[in-house]
Amino acid sequence: MQRPLRIGIAGLGTVGTGVLDAMKIHEAMIQARAGRPIALAGVSARSRDKRRGGHDLARVAWHDDPVALARASDIDLFVELMGGEGDPAKAAVEAALKAGKPVVTANKALIAHHGLALARLADRAGVALAFEASVAGAIPIVKTLRESLSGNRVRRVFGILNGTCNFILTKMSAEGAEFADVLREAQRLGYAEADPTFDIGGFDTAHKLAILTSLAFSTEISLESIYIEGIESITRADIVNADELGYRIKLLGVAALTEDGVEQRVHPTLVPKGTPIADVEGVDNAVVVKADMSGDLMLEGKGAGSHPTASSVIADICDIARGARSPAFGVPAEALMPCRRAAMRAHEGGYYVALDLYDRPGEVAAVARVLAGENISIESIVQRGPSLSMMSDGERGKRQTAPFILITHETLESAMRTALEKIENEGHSAGKPRMIRIERL
Amino acid sequence: MQRPLRIGIAGLGTVGTGVLDAMKIHEAMIQARAGRPIALAGVSARSRDKRRGGHDLARVAWHDDPVALARASDIDLFVELMGGEGDPAKAAVEAALKAGKPVVTANKALIAHHGLALARLADRAGVALAFEASVAGAIPIVKTLRESLSGNRVRRVFGILNGTCNFILTKMSAEGAEFADVLREAQRLGYAEADPTFDIGGFDTAHKLAILTSLAFSTEISLESIYIEGIESITRADIVNADELGYRIKLLGVAALTEDGVEQRVHPTLVPKGTPIADVEGVDNAVVVKADMSGDLMLEGKGAGSHPTASSVIADICDIARGARSPAFGVPAEALMPCRRAAMRAHEGGYYVALDLYDRPGEVAAVARVLAGENISIESIVQRGPSLSMMSDGERGKRQTAPFILITHETLESAMRTALEKIENEGHSAGKPRMIRIERL
Repeated sequence: MQRPLRIGIAGLGTVGTGVLDAMKIHEAMIQARAGRPIALAGVSARSRDKRRGGHDLARVAWHDDPVALARASDIDLFVELMGGEGDPAKAAVEAALKAGKPVVTANKALIAHHGLALARLADRAGVALAFEASVAGAIPIVKTLRESLSGNRVRRVFGILNGTCNFILTKMSAEGAEFADVLREAQRLGYAEADPTFDIGGFDTAHKLAILTSLAFSTEISLESIYIEGIESITRADIVNADELGYRIKLLGVAALTEDGVEQRVHPTLVPKGTPIADVEGVDNAVVVKADMSGDLMLEGKGAGSHPTASSVIADICDIARGARSPAFGVPAEALMPCRRAAMRAHEGGYYVALDLYDRPGEVAAVARVLAGENISIESIVQRGPSLSMMSDGERGKRQTAPFILITHETLESAMRTALEKIENEGHSAGKPRMIRIERL
Repeated sequence: MQRPLRIGIAGLGTVGTGVLDAMKIHEAMIQARAGRPIALAGVSARSRDKRRGGHDLARVAWHDDPVALARASDIDLFVELMGGEGDPAKAAVEAALKAGKPVVTANKALIAHHGLALARLADRAGVALAFEASVAGAIPIVKTLRESLSGNRVRRVFGILNGTCNFILTKMSAEGAEFADVLREAQRLGYAEADPTFDIGGFDTAHKLAILTSLAFSTEISLESIYIEGIESITRADIVNADELGYRIKLLGVAALTEDGVEQRVHPTLVPKGTPIADVEGVDNAVVVKADMSGDLMLEGKGAGSHPTASSVIADICDIARGARSPAFGVPAEALMPCRRAAMRAHEGGYYVALDLYDRPGEVAAVARVLAGENISIESIVQRGPSLSMMSDGERGKRQTAPFILITHETLESAMRTALEKIENEGHSAGKPRMIRIERL
């Protein structure tokens, strides 16, 4: 029998205990698939006394300092499950790589912020830096982009990468509920944090997208060049309108190779009903890859949670146990190209536009004129509520605006922004005109 | 720079020329991802003179005999793209493995029939036997089961594995057309062979399912223990009835771990509308894996074609170039357990039953009594066509039977078979009663 792979785990929260569960339940199977026993040789966590799902760690070496664990001479592989872009996670991973030890991490923030530098360290040491669990939980999208599409030029990768947002949008759609109410329910169910900004603001999706972009296009990771919009401003009315026009609203992370460079964006998106991505419900995640040889590929599954995330951590550990050593982002770090940012203003796509139009003669014509002036052509229009001209004088007095919704054909983001600014400045619309991008897939 | 990996390709048909295309178009990228150049050092095919999509093979060593190519001293890796379960494919792959050379193949028949013996040869030589392209074209399901689910006990794997059948069933559903007409169209479009038996009879799906079963459950491959039914007997009426009852009809390959052993079956299946697998249309393939840690995972994409299949071949080549060496079925061949077959009669599930009931008093009651006698409970009933009792005497004379469709709750296959036999023998139904299994997912 081959000698065991001795692993040290830093971080024994949700994911860490999930990994301990899998190692205990499936010990023999993991050994068969890894080609050797996996031995837990050291752990580090914030509190030594905490109960950890019935796992007895009394005979496992304890390290108060994860950096010391990463360097420990009786550890062959360092597993970082603490989270957070900075220290101690960063210092510990650096220490392991510098000591020539492979690293497995579930830490999206660490990879999104420091992935390139860490990949260089890993290459220098000739060891693996693996992070399947950092994106989309149990879905093997990192391995798919890194290894299964080696013979492809990827053109576009996009996905639903945040279960909290998809849960909220699915609930709003299914129950006709408003954002704030569903958010409260998600918080009660534990699907959303007390401070939900990181999820609903799109930042979590952006971290994951940055990682996928680098893997897909062999570019240096570039979190700061991602355009980010969250789902906070999506209303029940938007969801109803979109539905009527044949769309669902999803928070997508999209990365595309364009003539202007790499377009990376996170925003609420109208996706056509009947497409696979539109049907992804609840806390599930899904990623679609469009590549030149393979064609379209979609992977869907659990995007978070203790055991789904642990599943990906164990897969990385087994790969390393068998001696696999793919470069972190598919090619050596030195071969990654700088990520030339395509300006968001150069984005081309369809738009859903929601205006609160003043009920005055000529306003619709004025809006149409502004759009035409920017070369924006309209695909369809929905006017919500009772027609204004049918109202009695009394009703009209109470109600001086009406929702006016339109869908545009493909147009330039810069033109759309200019048009919305003009519509606002010329005083046709009460409140700020809003728009949601459309992904025709 | 590392020395090139010298590959020999036997078989230059659709997939072979696709591989040549990818190697030419993406040479630099493949080299970066493989960590070394991939050099085409030898080829073998039936005809030397044939034009091969503009690929100039004049300076590549030609072998009339693929076995000689497999053994050639200037070949590091043998790529088998000839197809067929027997020689020369089998002899050539054996020769390569015995000569200590890794093998990449797209040959489902070869792996389904001889995978265990070949995996033993590969293990003995300490080289890889890789066959991502043999199942579901571009979809990385082999790698996912072999590597990404190492920390999981897979409970069930099922999928749409034959594009021809899915094309036919999708068309029948979309256009309300009969099987024979759509088959003819599929043949005209090149989606079905002149002799379509291998596809529509479910045998192609069975080959792929046998491979997935072995990967999923770490069992010896066992093609002969698969229960197989094709789609030939599916009628337009079945599709309409299923739709009305909330289902679509798909040809599924299903493998499940049950208390009685491994259940492997291929048959037309009613799947609930709104589930991801029900929405897979046209020639696409999709595979769902249910595993204990990861939860449900679905992969969807192109299941066949020159470039999609080549994409998987190239991925295997790059893995081997980087030194990856997973056992063929995830664990060493000697660790694969015998595949204990669960009898099809012990299968439990829902059933769609289509009877052509004689229009006589008491027939419905008689059928209900037979079902009750076998402990089969009915979930819903559809009676098609005009109610018989409403017809004039003249009409009744012309039409002495009426379609009677029902859906059962979970029941035992043996009970269902007994009940249908009784219904036929007791003379309640004209023609043979038919049933289609339901997969509630």
